[in-house]
Amino acid sequence: MRGMNGLMMDFPLTLSAIFRRAEAMFCDREIVFRRPDQSLHRYSYAEFAERTRRLVRVLRDLGIRPGDRVATLAWNHGPHLEAYFAIPLAGSILHTLNLRLHPEELAFIVNHANDRAVVVDSLLLPLWECVRPHVNVPVTIVIDATESVRAGDLAYERLLAQSSATDIGPDPYEQTAAAMCYTTGTTGRPKGVLYSHRSLVLHALGICLADSVGLCEHDVVTPVVPMFHANAWGLPHAAIMSGAKLAFPGPHLNPPALLDLYQRERTTLTAGVPTVWLNMLQVLDANPNAYDISSLRMMLVGGAAIPPAIIDGFQKRHGINIVHAWGMTEMAPLGTISRLPAALIESSDDEKLQQRAKQGRPVPFVEIRGRNESGLVPWDGRTMGELEVRGPWVAGAYYNQTDGDDRFTEDGWFKTGDIVTIDGRGTVQLQDRSKDLIKSGGEWISSVALESALMGHPAVAEAAVIPVQHDKWGERPLAAVVLKPGTSATAAELRSFVAGHVPKIWIPDAFEFIDAIPRTSAGKFKKTELRERFKDYRLP
Amino acid sequence: MRGMNGLMMDFPLTLSAIFRRAEAMFCDREIVFRRPDQSLHRYSYAEFAERTRRLVRVLRDLGIRPGDRVATLAWNHGPHLEAYFAIPLAGSILHTLNLRLHPEELAFIVNHANDRAVVVDSLLLPLWECVRPHVNVPVTIVIDATESVRAGDLAYERLLAQSSATDIGPDPYEQTAAAMCYTTGTTGRPKGVLYSHRSLVLHALGICLADSVGLCEHDVVTPVVPMFHANAWGLPHAAIMSGAKLAFPGPHLNPPALLDLYQRERTTLTAGVPTVWLNMLQVLDANPNAYDISSLRMMLVGGAAIPPAIIDGFQKRHGINIVHAWGMTEMAPLGTISRLPAALIESSDDEKLQQRAKQGRPVPFVEIRGRNESGLVPWDGRTMGELEVRGPWVAGAYYNQTDGDDRFTEDGWFKTGDIVTIDGRGTVQLQDRSKDLIKSGGEWISSVALESALMGHPAVAEAAVIPVQHDKWGERPLAAVVLKPGTSATAAELRSFVAGHVPKIWIPDAFEFIDAIPRTSAGKFKKTELRERFKDYRLP
Repeated sequence: MRGMNGLMMDFPLTLSAIFRRAEAMFCDREIVFRRPDQSLHRYSYAEFAERTRRLVRVLRDLGIRPGDRVATLAWNHGPHLEAYFAIPLAGSILHTLNLRLHPEELAFIVNHANDRAVVVDSLLLPLWECVRPHVNVPVTIVIDATESVRAGDLAYERLLAQSSATDIGPDPYEQTAAAMCYTTGTTGRPKGVLYSHRSLVLHALGICLADSVGLCEHDVVTPVVPMFHANAWGLPHAAIMSGAKLAFPGPHLNPPALLDLYQRERTTLTAGVPTVWLNMLQVLDANPNAYDISSLRMMLVGGAAIPPAIIDGFQKRHGINIVHAWGMTEMAPLGTISRLPAALIESSDDEKLQQRAKQGRPVPFVEIRGRNESGLVPWDGRTMGELEVRGPWVAGAYYNQTDGDDRFTEDGWFKTGDIVTIDGRGTVQLQDRSKDLIKSGGEWISSVALESALMGHPAVAEAAVIPVQHDKWGERPLAAVVLKPGTSATAAELRSFVAGHVPKIWIPDAFEFIDAIPRTSAGKFKKTELRERFKDYRLP
Repeated sequence: MRGMNGLMMDFPLTLSAIFRRAEAMFCDREIVFRRPDQSLHRYSYAEFAERTRRLVRVLRDLGIRPGDRVATLAWNHGPHLEAYFAIPLAGSILHTLNLRLHPEELAFIVNHANDRAVVVDSLLLPLWECVRPHVNVPVTIVIDATESVRAGDLAYERLLAQSSATDIGPDPYEQTAAAMCYTTGTTGRPKGVLYSHRSLVLHALGICLADSVGLCEHDVVTPVVPMFHANAWGLPHAAIMSGAKLAFPGPHLNPPALLDLYQRERTTLTAGVPTVWLNMLQVLDANPNAYDISSLRMMLVGGAAIPPAIIDGFQKRHGINIVHAWGMTEMAPLGTISRLPAALIESSDDEKLQQRAKQGRPVPFVEIRGRNESGLVPWDGRTMGELEVRGPWVAGAYYNQTDGDDRFTEDGWFKTGDIVTIDGRGTVQLQDRSKDLIKSGGEWISSVALESALMGHPAVAEAAVIPVQHDKWGERPLAAVVLKPGTSATAAELRSFVAGHVPKIWIPDAFEFIDAIPRTSAGKFKKTELRERFKDYRLP
């Protein structure tokens, strides 16, 4: 049933328009990044725009065609930002490679994407040399090429110096692919997500909404989340659209280097995964008042749940506002963000903390629902279900791959694989990954809730909970615990501590004290390894 | 030159998605409005959603079909908000009628749009009865029908009570028309602007950006701008998308009624044209501390330029933050907004005030350029040109009318008819309407700048500047001035006062003291009437 069409302009939503805006309005705004030698390099939006236009010409002159995939293997810095815009502006597709993957996995991804060029950090050439023999990428461009590059390779700065700024040409259709990113978080082969201009633009608007990240021109943005992880959560696009100052850490992601960057550049907004902030909190606690980071208005966390005790520690001990968000590579990535609902303005500090520790509510145009064996779950804040999503920046399919087809429902939703509860205001609380969920006698037990409770104990540095086989219940939880140096806790103590936070039948049957939790390339707990280690575990 | 398409979901941007979001996430949020008897009526988003779904069913049961135009003739209140959503959700087109127009003009518009139904306030039935004989609208639905309605007419509340909430059905294509509004601000016949779902949704996102109005869930929004003026500047859509509380003034737009509403409902964000705020400032000045309006974080002004002295008066004397915006019915309407550029954070109070009094910088995806007889003007903050715009919420054509075709350039821009300067950061400063501009010996003189300067004089209540014929210069400025009661000023005094603010050759040749400046239905100065009055003026 179709009515009449409106008579508004057919103006496409493209990165070209974002770039044009930045160039026209924000020429004196700044971009700063830390070089490999730790020095800070700074330049203006005007120079960024000029260099980006040159890079567009370079790519075209090298024979890169519309639709071609151009890979980057780089840390967070200015030239990577230039590639973020120049590659889509040239009509081709930015393909960010995760430098933490195994070379074999990288080779698979490069071959699957059929990348026609790669822009690689000089620092990362050793990694690239492990990949290169197994792929066929005709063009290699080296950023920060300090000495003579290998025969046939090209130096980024020399190419730019020899080029000149070009006209970009007409805007593409908004459905045109602009970027791609492979997700390796799920089982099976890596799967490519192919972002359109439209999806990235709408996502940038989503980031800048006052009720979301509220990114604005006055911000100084330090993305700690790598630019090869789901577009650095869209922060580069949103920042350039808004004229915000960018302060990139380069390859220096240790807490002292980051804290120094925040202090020097007056960072207002930073973003990263929980493990980064856990380490930073330890540094801050050990060196109170060593850094002036009072400019920080928001420390965005995503990628995994962060325990309330950590949120509270940052707030109470260092005045830092942690804001929880949730998303996926398949979602560009922003899905939900935990800003305080208006109805909770008068609630107690503890209630506010509990709310903030949840993954939050969907940003506009991201729609959510939960599903379990009985169908769609009620929004009661209690019933667990797998989260399904849809929206204009959610993937509709994977790139040239059918073995992820079961992630899409027949009625057009994407199955996230996350087990959640949803409350009456749409607040999502992550309970587990569906593959990590512990199914005990018909009951779903959330490993995330158990881990969060355990990490509230003063002696616990980290904890991961996995299922082990049980004759009667099918599965029961086992907690693998890392204690903080110089502290101690017994299984009995932890059992009684946890009992105060979760239902009785969730209490782990076993506690194992280990040296470290294995991690994935994204810094998340690698539970498959723990499961393997404890696969023959006999419960007492 | 086209690349590969992205693989994201084909999720349309529709008011349906905004409505669904509000219903799912914000059921306990509030909508308040003042009834004709001045009492306040309040209800929840849940009730609003239920009533809107009933209205969708009512419209369908009455035979309203997708694409049909349904008019409203109503003040700002809950039922009008229900119509704002129900009419597009039913697939038909919301056509807001301006109750300040002459009945003949209204009849022309209703006939041109071929409205199939009208939803009219009981209070406005006398006006509608003047229109009704000249139009053919089969269905009349009366809001607040206190007594038995005229035979054949229907009572809004009775229809809703007899109906039940309906499934809305599948989302429309985002290009589908959702609303229309006729513009009467320009010469010639009224012209219809036909907004698509997409344009209204993107506009709502534009309103909620942190660098724009930053509308959020915690806001309490009081649109003083009528819902029949360019979608009340998109505030209803943005508020419902965000879950903000709405506090509508109903028909009570006098400053004491508005101030009382702000105080009672803790309004944070209000919006209207300069004349409303000019009157309010007088009331506040006369009754300092009579109202607690400390909740107000932003008083949005648009529709005409507001003098710096007024902005300063609100700020210094009453702590109220006036934010200037500029737009047009053809732009849904938001074009630019005057938030402080990051580079001016350290500037003096006076520089900040000068910046705030400008119309501001374009919101993302609104693109601007200026043009004069020599072509595109430089962004130097000095060279005047007619402002041209394009963007996803800018009209591409008028509805069923060709005599506005000259407003669109061959390369796809809309000619606003506003004469502006643009500075190096994209700040637009309104100099004049192209038809009000004074062309004096090859020089363009801004009547707006002269008026703004004059209204900075302590004795001047209002001033309007128009061109009068001059043998040598072609045109020269004449200032029509209204003095504040109990004050006095001579032409010589005003001449020397203005000399401090504008180029010497801009100084008006003549000053005429009059009782009042005539106004248009939108509350703007009606200069055509002044021009007529002074058309035979002989300069001394």
